[in-house]
Amino acid sequence: MFKIRVYVGYKESVLDPQAEVIQGAINRLGHGEVSDVKIGKFFDFKVSATSKEDAIQIAEKISDQLLANVNMESFKVEILEEL
Amino acid sequence: MFKIRVYVGYKESVLDPQAEVIQGAINRLGHGEVSDVKIGKFFDFKVSATSKEDAIQIAEKISDQLLANVNMESFKVEILEEL
Repeated sequence: MFKIRVYVGYKESVLDPQAEVIQGAINRLGHGEVSDVKIGKFFDFKVSATSKEDAIQIAEKISDQLLANVNMESFKVEILEEL
Repeated sequence: MFKIRVYVGYKESVLDPQAEVIQGAINRLGHGEVSDVKIGKFFDFKVSATSKEDAIQIAEKISDQLLANVNMESFKVEILEEL
C-alpha cells in the first residue's frame, strides 16, 4: 500500500486569472515582497499495489484520465510513503 | 529570495463531497485499489526576504489572512528552494 500525491497545475502557457487576483490581494495586504503566484490542486490517495512502479503507473493513469485536464494542465505523481 | 509552497486542505473533521465524487469516479474507472482520496490546493510564490525564518513568517501570515479559510481549512508552509 502506497500513499500517493498528485499535483495538478496549469501549463506554463495557460493564463490563470485566479492567481493574478490572489497576487493582487497579497500585494494590497502590504506584501510587495511576494511575486510569481501560481495555483494548483493536489490529490492524496492510497493505492493498494505490490510495487512502487505499479502504484505510480496506476496513479499516472488516473491522473491522465480523470484528475487533470491534459489539454490545459500538467500533473506530477509523487510517493509520499509506503504503508 | 525563496520559493515557497503553501498547501491548503480541509481539516480532518470537514466533509468533502468533491473528494467523494472523485473517489467514486476512480472506482468506476475500474480502480478499486484506490482509496482515501483527499483534495487540496497549493500556492507557489516567491518571497523576497533576507532569511528563511522571515520568508516562512511572511508565508504563514499570508496563508492565515488570505489563502486558507482557517475555520475549515488548515495550511502547511514549505520552502521549495532558495533562489
